[in-house]
Amino acid sequence: MSDYRIEKDSMGEVKVPVNAYYGAQTQRAFENFPISRIRFSRSFISALGQIKKCAAAVNSKLGLIDKSVADVVQEAAGEVMAGKFDDDFVLDIFQTGSGTSTNMNANEIIARRANELINDAESPIHPNDHVNFGQSSNDVIPTAIRIAAVTDVRKNLLPALEHLHSTLLEKGEQYKEVVKTGRTHLMDAMPVTFLQEFSGYARQVELGMERLRSALGRMAELPQGGTAVGTGINTHKEFGRRFAAELASETDFEFKEASNHFEAQATVDAPVELSSQLKTIAVGLMKIGNDFRWMNSGPNSGIGEVQLQALQPGSSIMPGKVNPVIEESLTMACAQVIGNDTTITVAGQSGNFELNVMLPVVAHNLLQSIEILANAARNFAERSVKGLSVREERIQEMVGKNPILVTALNPLIGYDKAAKIAKKAFSENRAVFEVAKEMTDLSDEDLRKALDPMNMTYGGFTES
Amino acid sequence: MSDYRIEKDSMGEVKVPVNAYYGAQTQRAFENFPISRIRFSRSFISALGQIKKCAAAVNSKLGLIDKSVADVVQEAAGEVMAGKFDDDFVLDIFQTGSGTSTNMNANEIIARRANELINDAESPIHPNDHVNFGQSSNDVIPTAIRIAAVTDVRKNLLPALEHLHSTLLEKGEQYKEVVKTGRTHLMDAMPVTFLQEFSGYARQVELGMERLRSALGRMAELPQGGTAVGTGINTHKEFGRRFAAELASETDFEFKEASNHFEAQATVDAPVELSSQLKTIAVGLMKIGNDFRWMNSGPNSGIGEVQLQALQPGSSIMPGKVNPVIEESLTMACAQVIGNDTTITVAGQSGNFELNVMLPVVAHNLLQSIEILANAARNFAERSVKGLSVREERIQEMVGKNPILVTALNPLIGYDKAAKIAKKAFSENRAVFEVAKEMTDLSDEDLRKALDPMNMTYGGFTES
Amino acid sequence: MSDYRIEKDSMGEVKVPVNAYYGAQTQRAFENFPISRIRFSRSFISALGQIKKCAAAVNSKLGLIDKSVADVVQEAAGEVMAGKFDDDFVLDIFQTGSGTSTNMNANEIIARRANELINDAESPIHPNDHVNFGQSSNDVIPTAIRIAAVTDVRKNLLPALEHLHSTLLEKGEQYKEVVKTGRTHLMDAMPVTFLQEFSGYARQVELGMERLRSALGRMAELPQGGTAVGTGINTHKEFGRRFAAELASETDFEFKEASNHFEAQATVDAPVELSSQLKTIAVGLMKIGNDFRWMNSGPNSGIGEVQLQALQPGSSIMPGKVNPVIEESLTMACAQVIGNDTTITVAGQSGNFELNVMLPVVAHNLLQSIEILANAARNFAERSVKGLSVREERIQEMVGKNPILVTALNPLIGYDKAAKIAKKAFSENRAVFEVAKEMTDLSDEDLRKALDPMNMTYGGFTES
Amino acid sequence: MSDYRIEKDSMGEVKVPVNAYYGAQTQRAFENFPISRIRFSRSFISALGQIKKCAAAVNSKLGLIDKSVADVVQEAAGEVMAGKFDDDFVLDIFQTGSGTSTNMNANEIIARRANELINDAESPIHPNDHVNFGQSSNDVIPTAIRIAAVTDVRKNLLPALEHLHSTLLEKGEQYKEVVKTGRTHLMDAMPVTFLQEFSGYARQVELGMERLRSALGRMAELPQGGTAVGTGINTHKEFGRRFAAELASETDFEFKEASNHFEAQATVDAPVELSSQLKTIAVGLMKIGNDFRWMNSGPNSGIGEVQLQALQPGSSIMPGKVNPVIEESLTMACAQVIGNDTTITVAGQSGNFELNVMLPVVAHNLLQSIEILANAARNFAERSVKGLSVREERIQEMVGKNPILVTALNPLIGYDKAAKIAKKAFSENRAVFEVAKEMTDLSDEDLRKALDPMNMTYGGFTES
Repeated sequence: MSDYRIEKDSMGEVKVPVNAYYGAQTQRAFENFPISRIRFSRSFISALGQIKKCAAAVNSKLGLIDKSVADVVQEAAGEVMAGKFDDDFVLDIFQTGSGTSTNMNANEIIARRANELINDAESPIHPNDHVNFGQSSNDVIPTAIRIAAVTDVRKNLLPALEHLHSTLLEKGEQYKEVVKTGRTHLMDAMPVTFLQEFSGYARQVELGMERLRSALGRMAELPQGGTAVGTGINTHKEFGRRFAAELASETDFEFKEASNHFEAQATVDAPVELSSQLKTIAVGLMKIGNDFRWMNSGPNSGIGEVQLQALQPGSSIMPGKVNPVIEESLTMACAQVIGNDTTITVAGQSGNFELNVMLPVVAHNLLQSIEILANAARNFAERSVKGLSVREERIQEMVGKNPILVTALNPLIGYDKAAKIAKKAFSENRAVFEVAKEMTDLSDEDLRKALDPMNMTYGGFTES
Repeated sequence: MSDYRIEKDSMGEVKVPVNAYYGAQTQRAFENFPISRIRFSRSFISALGQIKKCAAAVNSKLGLIDKSVADVVQEAAGEVMAGKFDDDFVLDIFQTGSGTSTNMNANEIIARRANELINDAESPIHPNDHVNFGQSSNDVIPTAIRIAAVTDVRKNLLPALEHLHSTLLEKGEQYKEVVKTGRTHLMDAMPVTFLQEFSGYARQVELGMERLRSALGRMAELPQGGTAVGTGINTHKEFGRRFAAELASETDFEFKEASNHFEAQATVDAPVELSSQLKTIAVGLMKIGNDFRWMNSGPNSGIGEVQLQALQPGSSIMPGKVNPVIEESLTMACAQVIGNDTTITVAGQSGNFELNVMLPVVAHNLLQSIEILANAARNFAERSVKGLSVREERIQEMVGKNPILVTALNPLIGYDKAAKIAKKAFSENRAVFEVAKEMTDLSDEDLRKALDPMNMTYGGFTES
Repeated sequence: MSDYRIEKDSMGEVKVPVNAYYGAQTQRAFENFPISRIRFSRSFISALGQIKKCAAAVNSKLGLIDKSVADVVQEAAGEVMAGKFDDDFVLDIFQTGSGTSTNMNANEIIARRANELINDAESPIHPNDHVNFGQSSNDVIPTAIRIAAVTDVRKNLLPALEHLHSTLLEKGEQYKEVVKTGRTHLMDAMPVTFLQEFSGYARQVELGMERLRSALGRMAELPQGGTAVGTGINTHKEFGRRFAAELASETDFEFKEASNHFEAQATVDAPVELSSQLKTIAVGLMKIGNDFRWMNSGPNSGIGEVQLQALQPGSSIMPGKVNPVIEESLTMACAQVIGNDTTITVAGQSGNFELNVMLPVVAHNLLQSIEILANAARNFAERSVKGLSVREERIQEMVGKNPILVTALNPLIGYDKAAKIAKKAFSENRAVFEVAKEMTDLSDEDLRKALDPMNMTYGGFTES
Repeated sequence: MSDYRIEKDSMGEVKVPVNAYYGAQTQRAFENFPISRIRFSRSFISALGQIKKCAAAVNSKLGLIDKSVADVVQEAAGEVMAGKFDDDFVLDIFQTGSGTSTNMNANEIIARRANELINDAESPIHPNDHVNFGQSSNDVIPTAIRIAAVTDVRKNLLPALEHLHSTLLEKGEQYKEVVKTGRTHLMDAMPVTFLQEFSGYARQVELGMERLRSALGRMAELPQGGTAVGTGINTHKEFGRRFAAELASETDFEFKEASNHFEAQATVDAPVELSSQLKTIAVGLMKIGNDFRWMNSGPNSGIGEVQLQALQPGSSIMPGKVNPVIEESLTMACAQVIGNDTTITVAGQSGNFELNVMLPVVAHNLLQSIEILANAARNFAERSVKGLSVREERIQEMVGKNPILVTALNPLIGYDKAAKIAKKAFSENRAVFEVAKEMTDLSDEDLRKALDPMNMTYGGFTES
């Protein structure tokens, strides 16, 4: 640090980079936590700005701070929301477990920026007395986690899943006439249509959206207003309710004051639940991604039912060698989300009394999970599902040879003869149709009808 | 096996214990899987019985099996539900991943028992053709998981949590006048009442119940009717819908047919979600249990705010040494639930195509988590929360000495003087009240009012 | 409980089943912990018996208890080791976190049994004063965990892995001449031999054994001798060292006294490490099990490279449908081991000061993981690896069609022509050999030599 | 991208930023994977550079590439090692699971930089033909993981733990005369010295170092030389062995060629093991960090045995309020390491056949865990352990009042009287010494000697 200025706090003087918007407390924390260089995410910083903005507005309406002060704090906080000071949020996420350092980082930036805007040396805006008025890190940081997570789920993850859902259904529709071999225990089983399989994937995604929406309701209960220990000491009794209303109005989402501030600050149960739902979605996407990888496997010595779009050179020789790179990216993202959930679980079970002090690591892992799940799902829809084509000829040949189709002949020729046909077809690697033609008196038409795999996918009979 | 009979299946003859109700397929599986000696739980076996009973009823109404056959199958299945044949469910949970062996175990027991009941050698009841009619292990086993889990949550876990919830609130009410030192970062902070703290715990439990109810809705979608691959091959088109209706009527719970059978059989996303919610509850109970352990710590060199009821000798010398054994039991159960969730997560992400083949390990871990969470929560309410008493004198002394109370004098004597009082009180280990009396001109009454910790717990002021 | 006797402890009288060998403290704990009905395992009970036996021997040699007392305690403890009183170990694992109740259970059983043996009402053997002499639950239980785990690894898991290792190599040798398509990204890649693939599996298992042996060294450090808080209060200074020596001599394994008793009692780091190594092995076996499942997939619409032995009916129609049930059993066991490791991890990170109080849940999960991993590995070797046969004809056909083989023609005909051959072979689904014969002037012999997949598996050239 | 140049690969033309050192394949991958913006770490990039440097050296000595080419490739690769091109490693870790894109990124940067250095348009250096000669992403990337992890453990983590180990012992020595109340079940128990407690922490750290060293041996087995599928196709038979020797010589660490290349490429068992050991260490540090937090708790209403150094304002009023921020940072880092281990576990169990395709996510999580564990451990030693001071007076008072000390009077006055003294001391909140003086005839000196807590910490008697 070559150019610095001197700042003071209750512990004395600190050198701060001359152009930094942050002040003494941020600088101390910067020096205290040289752990990972991982910083809070954009959406978390934006949520912090939003909290400070709403708080100033509410405190002004309650007559607790001057409107002129509130106005400029709101302006500066708005700039924080917009990302103008992201470079000044310099702190490591492995800091104090309450995130106090980052709350002070926001307070210091906004106060300095506000003072720059008003340029009034007489009555400067103070980080604590004005920007943090009626708040405590202990309600601000968990509130920021909830606002950021809810926003990212609504604006990023749900739309991405919605897009994936419709893309899967469209692709299924495109190939709804194609019947393929079903697989249980990885073994050839009764046939299904592509649309059936893809409708299952789509339903997984749809249920994932339901799961998220259910968790969002509980995430929308805001700790703000509880201050230091949940009692609301040093803030106005109306602050929590009005703050939530202000935020709800600004965001068009039903944020509300926590019905119990002690639960809301002492635990991260709601973030644990949301992370768990992200994990459940990741588990589902892992299955879909793996099915895609296996369907594309081969092209010869694998399942080879589909051909993924080539996005980057897989092999300079083999035209068929398209590595399922998007699926691999997706499944790795899912593995990360599953691990992040463990981190959040460990953090969640470690709280004591009036505060959980693993808030920053919860924030980081939760928001990262939302982000990568959203981006990986969208990328999968766009770069993989859309471009997938089905290898119909190969599939048809495989279905035709599937000896299990013979099940359909049981009513016509009896179990014993059907079994003989199946064994012969399998051992000679021939289609059941051909073998059945040789071994029975059934007409081509009857056989074709009975052995039509599409018929077998309608499922269920209607009369006994 | 000294006394045996000979049974046959498609692979040939097998020796089966002479009195066993199960048959050849069960016996083969018994020999194939000598892994853990862990068997399916009572509630899972009961669910299997219930499925077979409802299936017989529905198939009979659809005219697919004779009423006389259906009647006796229902009777035998009812006995399985009631636990009469639990000893005949001999299979390890580490078996075939579809649970086919256990489905056949149920079919064989019920058929043999039904034949015993009708005693008609001419037209015997067949395990596959009658008991398993219109079903497949691939829809039966995941359906059994859902029925058993929903039932256990409704009949065991939710009532246990409800009981814990009310017990926590009652205990909080009992001590609502007691103010204690709040703790953030484990450090002495502004005061809170016992009721406030306990209301936070109660709210955690209440939200846990909400989380369960939300997951139950999705668990109530039954795979039954999808048969082998989800298409419903070999069952009546109406079977799934009617089966769910029959079950709903019998259980008085809104079970319904899965809206997508491919999702319902190919994935265990719903069990993963439910397990995740159990994990979230475990995370919450871990926090509560640990708070109790710490509140009881001491009696001298710890926090010592409460005294737990003595349940078993902690020390033969120290009357105050009551080990928090119920809390330890509870937190260990929570650790188990968290680990079980990992197992279920790994199982969930490993499915392929039309079937997840980790169903038995999912069943075992899910049902165990529900059971131990319910029992540990109920035991905690009964044997710990109820008997807890507060050490009021000690708490009052600690609160009085808490230098942070001085915050309340700021408006009256200014920040600087307040800080001096705090420092002196702390360094001399005296109550703030006493020191403030010495160092200020405030009357006893004013001081007492200002420093009344109870006032500080009301939270929030009402005017600026 | 219809028939009971009255027992007393420091808290008063308790009714105990009349024939029970255990006493008052066990009975209280039995009533206090109605959580799971899961009990400690056979090997844990045996380890407890062994501790009591060795302790009596050492205390007698140190002159601290009479030889006559020691003799009969050793005899009774030996019966506990042998399993004679397993039914009297009635306590739930979700009990007090120190396992004190189960230590007392052992003390009570051994004392009662010893009194039965000596039949001397004058000077009875006392559970605490004699059986538990110089010990504390706080060193006994963690010592029992270590003895049981080390023993189970040595006697069960390592031999099972050794057997699996040699079985894999033998199977690889059996098919060392068979060349198959290698797969990366699941896509057809350069060829490998079966022996190469199986040697990789075998090496995984071998490294797993190395990992276990490395962890055993640290597990062999015994807490015994630390008593209540690690200082060894109330035991002889020599007790820890002599106890370990006695045990080492009895077991022929280099058990030793912990070099630091505070670490040994306050943490379960060593069990966490051992569990982690079990998890690492489970991760490896999961991969092997899945490879087997996929190799067996088909028989037509899958990879179909091998045929597993039929152990139980997969399908009554399809001779080829052999579900990979042993692999499914194995991979489910692996999922359980991975989850158990999470439980142990959560338990490990939750210790405080002089004692970790999640010992019973650690014991249960650790010993279960060892047992199911051993049994599943042995079962896999015996019932799957041994009986596997390779579908040579099908493999050869797939290898021949693999267009990537054309790589080997690059030096002879140039990259461009080779690429054209590959594309044509793939699009016409023909063998590279045939297409190359048409499109080049190379002789059959030259082509055959160049395209011999076995040559490509030798790997690496020797000259530039 | 305003200024770009056109680059080509086998799929056609791509626009690349004009000043980028990377080429077409990197650019495609950059566009294909817009997931997280997380990039590979410094140490991973350095390892990639080192691989390319060693590979060029070995290939040149084997006569496979010209020495002049090798020289300039080594120079450029050295610059990559040194960090000169870190900004050109632009790819997301959620990319192709083999890390091929990042291997090509390195190849492209090194080739372009080498061409810049030689400035010879006639015979340019080629990314594949020269930089990647005799290598495949499938051996390069897992080798890079191993080199980077081993290096980071050796250069960063082990020294950090060594430092923490000695700092803990020094602090223990500083307070070796201080006796404090031991705690089991969080309850007051027999006394221990500070040195004893800290020696336990130090031993945990020491065992952690042992665990790491044991895992490093297996991590040092390098996949390099296996190329595409482990057979070593397209590389010289001697390449693997010579490469490892070259690297061992450059790094002064016993890297060696994998004894089985199939295991080394198809699995990430060794990284799973190393991550598990990091997790075990994290579990241990979590316990230490929590003990510190609790020891510092208070200052009045907590345990209050120590005073941590104030690093940043905890409270502007309370001099005693020093939040344990470094411990919170440490324990959050531990939670992250535990979660990262889950991610790596999920990745590890998902491999198939010749390649695990979750390599980038393994690399990221493993290297992050090493880094944050090292930094957090070092920070904890420096900013917390070193500055900790013991509140001796308070501790002494608490120890004196501990009724359990009365145990030591049993031999002198009998159990019954001792118990009465204990009860009285506890109920009147007085020191045992005082009460015993009143209630017995023992002299002050005898009492003092008998009740000296330090005597009780020596542990173990030497004669019966």
